[in-house]
Amino acid sequence: MIETTTAKKPRRSSWKRSPNPRPARRTPPALGPTKMTSDHGEETLKIIPLGGLGEIGKNMCLLEYKDDILVIDAGFKFPDEDHLGIDYIIPNTEYLERKRGNIRGLILTHGHMDHIGALPYLLEKLGNPDIYGGALTRGIVAKRHEEFPHLPKLKFHIVKADDTAKFGDYFEVEFFHVNHNIPDDLALFIKTPKATIVHTADFKFDHSPTNGQPINLDHLRELGRRGVSVLMADSTGAEREGHSISEKTIMDNMELIFRESKQMIVFGTFASMVDRIQQIVWLSEKYGRKVVFEGYSMKSNVEIAKELGYIKMQKDTQITSNQVNDYPRSKITVIATGAQGQSNAALMRIANHEHRFIRLIKKDSLIFSSSTVPGNERAVQNLKDMFYRAGMKVYHYQMMDIHAGGHAQREDLGHMMEVMNPKILMPIHGQYSMMVSHSEIGQTKGIPEENIIIADNGSVIHLSNPDLENPISDKIRWWFDKRTVASNPILVDGLGIGDVGNVVLRDRQVLAEDGMFVIVILIDTKTGRVLTSPDIISRGFIYLKDNKELLAQVRKKARFVVEKTSAVGRVDTAYLKDNLREEIGKFLFQKTEKRPMVLPVVIEV
Amino acid sequence: MIETTTAKKPRRSSWKRSPNPRPARRTPPALGPTKMTSDHGEETLKIIPLGGLGEIGKNMCLLEYKDDILVIDAGFKFPDEDHLGIDYIIPNTEYLERKRGNIRGLILTHGHMDHIGALPYLLEKLGNPDIYGGALTRGIVAKRHEEFPHLPKLKFHIVKADDTAKFGDYFEVEFFHVNHNIPDDLALFIKTPKATIVHTADFKFDHSPTNGQPINLDHLRELGRRGVSVLMADSTGAEREGHSISEKTIMDNMELIFRESKQMIVFGTFASMVDRIQQIVWLSEKYGRKVVFEGYSMKSNVEIAKELGYIKMQKDTQITSNQVNDYPRSKITVIATGAQGQSNAALMRIANHEHRFIRLIKKDSLIFSSSTVPGNERAVQNLKDMFYRAGMKVYHYQMMDIHAGGHAQREDLGHMMEVMNPKILMPIHGQYSMMVSHSEIGQTKGIPEENIIIADNGSVIHLSNPDLENPISDKIRWWFDKRTVASNPILVDGLGIGDVGNVVLRDRQVLAEDGMFVIVILIDTKTGRVLTSPDIISRGFIYLKDNKELLAQVRKKARFVVEKTSAVGRVDTAYLKDNLREEIGKFLFQKTEKRPMVLPVVIEV
Repeated sequence: MIETTTAKKPRRSSWKRSPNPRPARRTPPALGPTKMTSDHGEETLKIIPLGGLGEIGKNMCLLEYKDDILVIDAGFKFPDEDHLGIDYIIPNTEYLERKRGNIRGLILTHGHMDHIGALPYLLEKLGNPDIYGGALTRGIVAKRHEEFPHLPKLKFHIVKADDTAKFGDYFEVEFFHVNHNIPDDLALFIKTPKATIVHTADFKFDHSPTNGQPINLDHLRELGRRGVSVLMADSTGAEREGHSISEKTIMDNMELIFRESKQMIVFGTFASMVDRIQQIVWLSEKYGRKVVFEGYSMKSNVEIAKELGYIKMQKDTQITSNQVNDYPRSKITVIATGAQGQSNAALMRIANHEHRFIRLIKKDSLIFSSSTVPGNERAVQNLKDMFYRAGMKVYHYQMMDIHAGGHAQREDLGHMMEVMNPKILMPIHGQYSMMVSHSEIGQTKGIPEENIIIADNGSVIHLSNPDLENPISDKIRWWFDKRTVASNPILVDGLGIGDVGNVVLRDRQVLAEDGMFVIVILIDTKTGRVLTSPDIISRGFIYLKDNKELLAQVRKKARFVVEKTSAVGRVDTAYLKDNLREEIGKFLFQKTEKRPMVLPVVIEV
Repeated sequence: MIETTTAKKPRRSSWKRSPNPRPARRTPPALGPTKMTSDHGEETLKIIPLGGLGEIGKNMCLLEYKDDILVIDAGFKFPDEDHLGIDYIIPNTEYLERKRGNIRGLILTHGHMDHIGALPYLLEKLGNPDIYGGALTRGIVAKRHEEFPHLPKLKFHIVKADDTAKFGDYFEVEFFHVNHNIPDDLALFIKTPKATIVHTADFKFDHSPTNGQPINLDHLRELGRRGVSVLMADSTGAEREGHSISEKTIMDNMELIFRESKQMIVFGTFASMVDRIQQIVWLSEKYGRKVVFEGYSMKSNVEIAKELGYIKMQKDTQITSNQVNDYPRSKITVIATGAQGQSNAALMRIANHEHRFIRLIKKDSLIFSSSTVPGNERAVQNLKDMFYRAGMKVYHYQMMDIHAGGHAQREDLGHMMEVMNPKILMPIHGQYSMMVSHSEIGQTKGIPEENIIIADNGSVIHLSNPDLENPISDKIRWWFDKRTVASNPILVDGLGIGDVGNVVLRDRQVLAEDGMFVIVILIDTKTGRVLTSPDIISRGFIYLKDNKELLAQVRKKARFVVEKTSAVGRVDTAYLKDNLREEIGKFLFQKTEKRPMVLPVVIEV
């Protein structure tokens, strides 16, 4: 173990070693510095990532200096196969909750759910802080807020690129414009007493974006010249070579499909891909097509974006699905949710012939204009196959450039480093492998390995700079605190936030594998004998009606276990239950090689 | 609906419309012919795919003419997320079982599990048929057979390329050599009275393969010149542009890693990738490394392949894992199973620090030399991240060519068509989208769309050829029978084959989502009153100890429901149970927005 010490050692109860569901990091992070002490009692600036590191989604982090905290983003992510039945996973904010009085603001960089989705579940716990974000971000957040009527009114402050805001005594943020695939994506230039931090948000360089302007490189260079201590940059695209594709290219390729198609064109994409939706609307208008929006979130986002002027369309372009059959097939474009193969989304309903008005036929075109979220590959393939099977023309991004990711790729990430020329690089947002790739790019750009912070959620990073006037002073030091803040993810299931823990998840896993087997036994307290034939309830194990013989054997076995146990003397129910669980479980396994959860109920009368 | 008629209409009970778990095909396949009648009472040759069409895995098909049936392959596939708790999925052989007396042989094209895995579950049902396959295929099949001691002795006949075998009166098969990533992969040239069929097995062209020879193109051309009526060809690579990478390139790239590495090298790959394993052994020997094999199936396959001479290694190359620490780290190569991120495989045990002898440290090299099976993407990413996190060098096939698929890509598939010049193309093996892509290649090679058979599992394809002497006669016709044979997949779960059906799966799904809630109520038959406080057993719902208040409310609710129901008169238990299920379910949903499976048990005493 390498010893690390901190300037101040807070011993408050809000600090704890974070329980890690994955194997614990046995050593300090591989790329950290060796030993570092700020021995002049200097108060450090702390960076604490709460989510989005080593994972895709639930982005959230905080900056803390003295009694001021600035929070950036509050996203959720979707559960993976280990999280059966869970709706969403949100960051652990235990540390923030204890210090909520110190929160001077929560900045939402843009309106994607992995940056705003956790807000309704955290709002009260964080003391309903002041929120800052772009107009579209506010629109999306406010719309979603309506679904949570018990929550307090949002204190949302709309900001735009080039605005500056002061948070508490120590943080001053200058918002600046970057490209992504939703408008109003804001990156942050944050001045603090110890360091200047650039937080890129999700970003890419796009020289011909759909909405708004390209990144203003001159402005970025000017920011870089002011001196950037730490560049916290989006790693999501760090494993992709080259530059990300411009939305202009996407538009050109989509136009090829419009030009060729003589029938209905259906797009599957995310409701939050506002720019893509705008492109499709423009192309539809150019080719004389009406546009139908399908899916709740799609309709809702389109309304918000239209209202705010981020989606522009002619007055008569949009129609509703019940009007589809009033037009020739060649005059209809459908934009639907469900490109990830979600079983309940609009695209699946269309594929399943369950949609009331939209019926696809041979030679209609189906365009998947979104990348596949990891874990959804099989569902997407199945959905595509349903359309192929029906003879449709299916287009997806592996065939031609009809989708561009929203994230800077390797060359772009390198370019951002050159422009900002940071002292320290901190890869954020992305799988661990992406953060490592990002770090490798940093090293090729001359940032020494010891100045690259590859952190975990819950890590506490200290920044010290005795040379107050110079944000890129050679005296700047960073180190990990030996302690971490709680970072185990919080599971949202129905109304419960964090009420489903590992025990419940493990039970769901067992139930999912081989089901359950309840046996109810009535025992005469006096004689210790089984009173009536035991009741058996089983689900998810085998089909009982086909296995009457097995059930009869289990009943016999149960009676035998009860009588053997009670023969010894007074029946101890807990002991008897254990015996029943074990003996019946063993018996069922011998007969079936399945291991249902065996739950004996013993009732003494 | 387009009418299709058949020469003969068998009305046997073994025919049935196959229940299709996915939306039914409402119209005949898009690419089928319109109307066709063999009106001269001609007996047709039937091709019936039982598995492997529109999916990856469980490959199996049969050819039938009069009373002779020839079966090709008997693979399984792994379940997807819809098949909770299931071990394997195997083809439905109901049709074959009824006609097992007619089976003249079962050919196993090669030793991969998606071609041989279902054998132990089908062997008895098919009447223990004579099996034909290569020596390595036999070795792998025989080894696995040992795990099923209750099965009859295998009747396995070893065949090799250029052998000819006669099956019954009507089928004559000439085996020929193709490349794949396991030795002894055999393609089939099948002469029948109605047609000559080439079945490619899984194949690719490799001009510099690891083991054995490249495909003998002259021989293939000679086969083609004899006249091929139907080319049944592997579609798995049909969506990949160009040619598949030669194993020589893979070897060269892997050597770069050997040359650079100064520490332990760990390979994750499939146990069945015999050729890849041979390459790694050769490289290890060249660079003075010992080789450790990890994982049960890896060790077992290596033993078989060594015995048969398909893996050649020097006498002292192989060591066991407990000898690892007797050598410097730079002298060790580990070849382990688990590159798909399987939680119980060797690679995961190593990543988790659970392996007794193999401990990885910073700068060790980890090489994923296998493609990711669809559905495993997230598990593989998580496994890779565990190694990245520990500071290892991770190599995977997206970074450099250290893995080649075993399947012909677009150019190669086109080449095979040119060589065989078939009358009819039947894409087999692969997702529906791959079969469609394969069909598109066929069309560019001049095969008209109506001569391309895109079928489903369970389709019955008739081939008629009144011009007996000419296998590529213009009089050859094919059509789909209006009926299909049973093709719903059979689920293997523990000892059960097909005992887990949709009801059980649906229950597992519900249990996996929100768990279950059993409430046991004792009722006094005379008074209709609840006798004692109801017992509650719940798993996978919420943690009961934290929710005592909710449980108290449920008990109260239950008592209320019982007394309200029994107030009406004599208690009908079924009716009472329904009421309890509904009321308690509703109540729990209101309180939690979760929907556990509610199971009331009413006991009258």
